[in-house]
Amino acid sequence: MTLPAIGISLGDPGGVGPEIVLKALSERSSLPEARYIVFGGGPILAEAAEALGLRPDLSTWKDGDLPSVPGRFFRDAGGPQAGFVKGKASAGNGEASFLFFRAAVEMARAGLLQAVVTAPISKTSWRLAGLSWRGHTEYLESLFPGAIMTFWSAKLRVALLSHHLPLREAMERVKKGALLGFFRNLHQSLGRTKSGIRELLVAGLNPHAGEDGLLGTEEDDEIRPAVEEARKEGLSISGPFPPDTVFLKALGRPEKMVVALYHDQGLIGFKLEAFETGVNATFGMPFIRTSPDHGTAYDIAGKGTADPRSLIAAIRMAVELS
Amino acid sequence: MTLPAIGISLGDPGGVGPEIVLKALSERSSLPEARYIVFGGGPILAEAAEALGLRPDLSTWKDGDLPSVPGRFFRDAGGPQAGFVKGKASAGNGEASFLFFRAAVEMARAGLLQAVVTAPISKTSWRLAGLSWRGHTEYLESLFPGAIMTFWSAKLRVALLSHHLPLREAMERVKKGALLGFFRNLHQSLGRTKSGIRELLVAGLNPHAGEDGLLGTEEDDEIRPAVEEARKEGLSISGPFPPDTVFLKALGRPEKMVVALYHDQGLIGFKLEAFETGVNATFGMPFIRTSPDHGTAYDIAGKGTADPRSLIAAIRMAVELS
Repeated sequence: MTLPAIGISLGDPGGVGPEIVLKALSERSSLPEARYIVFGGGPILAEAAEALGLRPDLSTWKDGDLPSVPGRFFRDAGGPQAGFVKGKASAGNGEASFLFFRAAVEMARAGLLQAVVTAPISKTSWRLAGLSWRGHTEYLESLFPGAIMTFWSAKLRVALLSHHLPLREAMERVKKGALLGFFRNLHQSLGRTKSGIRELLVAGLNPHAGEDGLLGTEEDDEIRPAVEEARKEGLSISGPFPPDTVFLKALGRPEKMVVALYHDQGLIGFKLEAFETGVNATFGMPFIRTSPDHGTAYDIAGKGTADPRSLIAAIRMAVELS
Repeated sequence: MTLPAIGISLGDPGGVGPEIVLKALSERSSLPEARYIVFGGGPILAEAAEALGLRPDLSTWKDGDLPSVPGRFFRDAGGPQAGFVKGKASAGNGEASFLFFRAAVEMARAGLLQAVVTAPISKTSWRLAGLSWRGHTEYLESLFPGAIMTFWSAKLRVALLSHHLPLREAMERVKKGALLGFFRNLHQSLGRTKSGIRELLVAGLNPHAGEDGLLGTEEDDEIRPAVEEARKEGLSISGPFPPDTVFLKALGRPEKMVVALYHDQGLIGFKLEAFETGVNATFGMPFIRTSPDHGTAYDIAGKGTADPRSLIAAIRMAVELS
């Protein structure tokens, strides 16, 4: 078996990304054996390492095959080498963090990486840099329209039918055909990994899952028919369940994943159970992408106090799923 | 100061209501001093007491003024005296539980009770009995159109702009005028009690509270103007906040209450934090109504194993708020 190759993009140079990446890679005992490749800029890494008093000990990887032994590598992703702003958004921060991310994604699309772990970018920086994608996820969706957002913590696992959409638009996605396609795609994507998920629990859209049509019709018209069709195809899936109790059915049950029908339905519960320890994982692509469940944390950037645990969890998960 | 008079309706005779009411009233040390009046039927109470081996020691209260000393009283609410079905819904169960509840509400409307605590009814029993109200809440709303549903636990407090509505209809309620009226009503209702709430945190409707209009317009068009208007009137209120993090702002802060814009937005978070210990409280009426956060539990009815803690919490809260 080949050791997985895991790309790690540094994120926004003005945020906590460089710091938590260096901290995570320095805590060797906490990471499984793999080939880790940091995609970033040399001066940014050097500056962060000096500020932290760390010697990251990364081998520079330029071209050709990656060594087949475990290790930590650095890949210069090009782009601006200076002019970054610590602690706030800037066009330079946006351009650099996009290039780091894109370089890792390209390498993964080419089959050289099994997973990409993304340290936080600032969507304001991306906008200032003139980028049209809102963030990592939107860029991945533009390349892979079947990309699926999932959220993982020790206690709860959630997949989102849709994410960054106004609630009205998200509701329009709740159609039998779209749901069935989503269930199949999620099932297949999870099945290709060691996710451990064996059962999908689908939330309803309305209070009490519509209560036999009294409180809404989408359950009877769209959701239940899609779930039943998926079951006929052999998927282990059930629902629609009342949205306010479906999370309790999955809590502490690592083999169960809740399918939420819109952003906040999934993330209200997830963030209450997993804030700052959760991992975001994107499925439905030829590779896995994971990220920590927090942002650039500009307010503490450069102070050396950023907590790398969520990033470490994202890296571990990337290796486990690869 | 007069001791509060608290009505307690027995709930569905086939459910755990009679059992938990008797258990709660027997644990004298766990309840504050007050005048407690059970609204129910004599044979139901006698049967439950015998099954539990409890001697409830209730003074029958027929007419005239309640004694001004602490005590436990029984008020026969009339209706069927027999023919109830244990462990499942029935028309007789529905008729009886409605009469118990209505008798308590009438006494509260007449100013003789400061609060009503409702043990669980079965909405199926109510339907079988030909009642047009879905449950306690809908009956109260028919009498008091400004009734407000709130949910309380040790960790979290939530008010719902709307509750038993299809999500599409609930979204139509998110209008500046309706929101402002709701904020005022909630603020005034809480202010008349010892609720301890000093700040309202309003959730947005869309992911990230609309993110400056990118992910929805209701925040800018309806919610923020209503919050700002309410602030001008002197209310301590803020928002709209991203729905997936607003609960974290209120968690463990007993002076803060989240205003959720639809049923599941409020109850997904609340049930994860408070399942089986939460209390439902109805404000916006001339009296307070509280109830435990569970149903009839037909599966364990009559076995003597029902847990009275949520009902005890509801009774304590009724006294504290009175």
